[in-house]
Amino acid sequence: MNTIESKFNLIYRRELKQVDRILKRALSKRKPLTLYAPAYYIIESGGKRIRPWLVLLSAKAVGGKYSDAYYAGCAVELLHNFTLVHDDIMDNADKRRGRLTLHVKYDENTAILAGDSLLAVAYENLLKNCNGNSKEIFTDFTRGLIEVCEGQSLDKEYETKPVVSINEYIEMVRKKTAAMLQMCCSIGARIGNGSMDEITALSSFGRNIGIAFQIQDDLLDVTANENEFGKTIGGDLMEGKKTFLLIDALSRAKGRNKIKLELLVKNKGIKSNRVLEFKKLYDDIGVLNSARHEIEKFTGLALRSIKVLKYNEDREMFIWLAESLIKRIK
Amino acid sequence: MNTIESKFNLIYRRELKQVDRILKRALSKRKPLTLYAPAYYIIESGGKRIRPWLVLLSAKAVGGKYSDAYYAGCAVELLHNFTLVHDDIMDNADKRRGRLTLHVKYDENTAILAGDSLLAVAYENLLKNCNGNSKEIFTDFTRGLIEVCEGQSLDKEYETKPVVSINEYIEMVRKKTAAMLQMCCSIGARIGNGSMDEITALSSFGRNIGIAFQIQDDLLDVTANENEFGKTIGGDLMEGKKTFLLIDALSRAKGRNKIKLELLVKNKGIKSNRVLEFKKLYDDIGVLNSARHEIEKFTGLALRSIKVLKYNEDREMFIWLAESLIKRIK
Repeated sequence: MNTIESKFNLIYRRELKQVDRILKRALSKRKPLTLYAPAYYIIESGGKRIRPWLVLLSAKAVGGKYSDAYYAGCAVELLHNFTLVHDDIMDNADKRRGRLTLHVKYDENTAILAGDSLLAVAYENLLKNCNGNSKEIFTDFTRGLIEVCEGQSLDKEYETKPVVSINEYIEMVRKKTAAMLQMCCSIGARIGNGSMDEITALSSFGRNIGIAFQIQDDLLDVTANENEFGKTIGGDLMEGKKTFLLIDALSRAKGRNKIKLELLVKNKGIKSNRVLEFKKLYDDIGVLNSARHEIEKFTGLALRSIKVLKYNEDREMFIWLAESLIKRIK
Repeated sequence: MNTIESKFNLIYRRELKQVDRILKRALSKRKPLTLYAPAYYIIESGGKRIRPWLVLLSAKAVGGKYSDAYYAGCAVELLHNFTLVHDDIMDNADKRRGRLTLHVKYDENTAILAGDSLLAVAYENLLKNCNGNSKEIFTDFTRGLIEVCEGQSLDKEYETKPVVSINEYIEMVRKKTAAMLQMCCSIGARIGNGSMDEITALSSFGRNIGIAFQIQDDLLDVTANENEFGKTIGGDLMEGKKTFLLIDALSRAKGRNKIKLELLVKNKGIKSNRVLEFKKLYDDIGVLNSARHEIEKFTGLALRSIKVLKYNEDREMFIWLAESLIKRIK
């Protein structure tokens, strides 16, 4: 890591520590414990906190202070965790961040209600960073929430839909993942009193980096190193999930490869001992390169959009963040 | 019904028709259908729309127009339906408003997500009635949401708690039912630009009428006529639910009656053929009268609090509403 990177890393860790402090305070020492202890459980399990980091960076990049956006940063992280808790129930997931998922650790009823309360406390925290422009901030936040619900619904719909196009996939990802990152940037920019141009630029950064982020996530499912990844390699393949890789592969493959992929879809996944075979298939027909190309394309769009921001260290920080996301191994 | 009552009834039906129109429009013609069709299903199943009516009445009573509060009225009804959908999953309920509950009609995953989207669309609609005072309105709305989650959590907690006091019961009801009615009145009053005194008075009306409403609900479980009630009589007894009646009965009963009631709690309910026996027991030891007394007490508190409002037809409308709730048969 060079000097500037380690400096950025230091700022990231320093500021996120503040967000984490508020985040935990928002849920601890609160009653009834039957509601807030499970909510606290998911929050203390960590995560990269990319969403609050985007809120803070955006506020700073348009001339505000990191600390202006701490509560809004908490709000987006709480919103994100609300989606994780409910999605994990719907996806029947057992593990999250190396720990038992909430509905497995407690039970499904507790997880539904703890999820709801995470969303409620998210709005409560957002209010603490809203002043003159509360209506706009609430509008963006609520828009993000609606899109994430719509995206999750599409994602579940695609599980049983025989054919999903790349455009449909991108639309789903735009809603399920990118809309929230876009919202993080827009509310951060609003809190920092950014101009309309700055808000638009940062929103576009968030949206495009969000799409790149999700394709990278799909790619890591087959290319990651299991020890570093923290979850099983090939999980998406085993579930027959309609990822960028699978959709792209279905459109590229011919002959025997095509039949193999269609069988995977029909059987809703493959056994774990065939993951490497499919990874090789993806590589052979150019899917892995195609995914890398798309990640670069959307990252490029993200970086281009922030050129309207003043050139300074704050802008550099977005480039650093974008690059860290591309290079991430988990 | 006398002339003034039928006039009030006419206004109620006319205004709620407008709210219903917006409510349905908020969810129809919206995609993905996999998300919004289930959400629409619960909304079109009707209900008394007491919560939007409180919002409208409160806005009008402080000098605003009914139409100023249509969207906020939709918002509270959407919020209420979000709680119904998630509560029905948690309570394993099969029927709601004479129809299959959402998770039975569709499935549990669909119901979790449709519930989430109802809440999201609630905030979206609320924003349409927020202008100068959006922060206060959002604060009250979010406070209502948090309390309803806490109330539901306490309600589930009490299912397995051996002894629940009347004070604990009232605290649960204040959060689970009354907080939302209080919020309806406060945001209505804020939308109508009411004074602080008016907001406080109407909030107190909503809170107290909410507690009366819930005790009345508990009472109807044993005193209602099954055909008019729309659900099975004695459902709470069969589940061993810690209602006002059961908690009060446990504190009053002696000897054999006490043992019977304690067995009901221990066995988590009774068979349907014993409902009448317990209704008679409640009556004999004065529980039904005690419930009626509490309903009158809280209704009285509600009516007293609105004496600060100007004396006119709008204020009369609250009295009419309070009396309709006491006299209701379902």
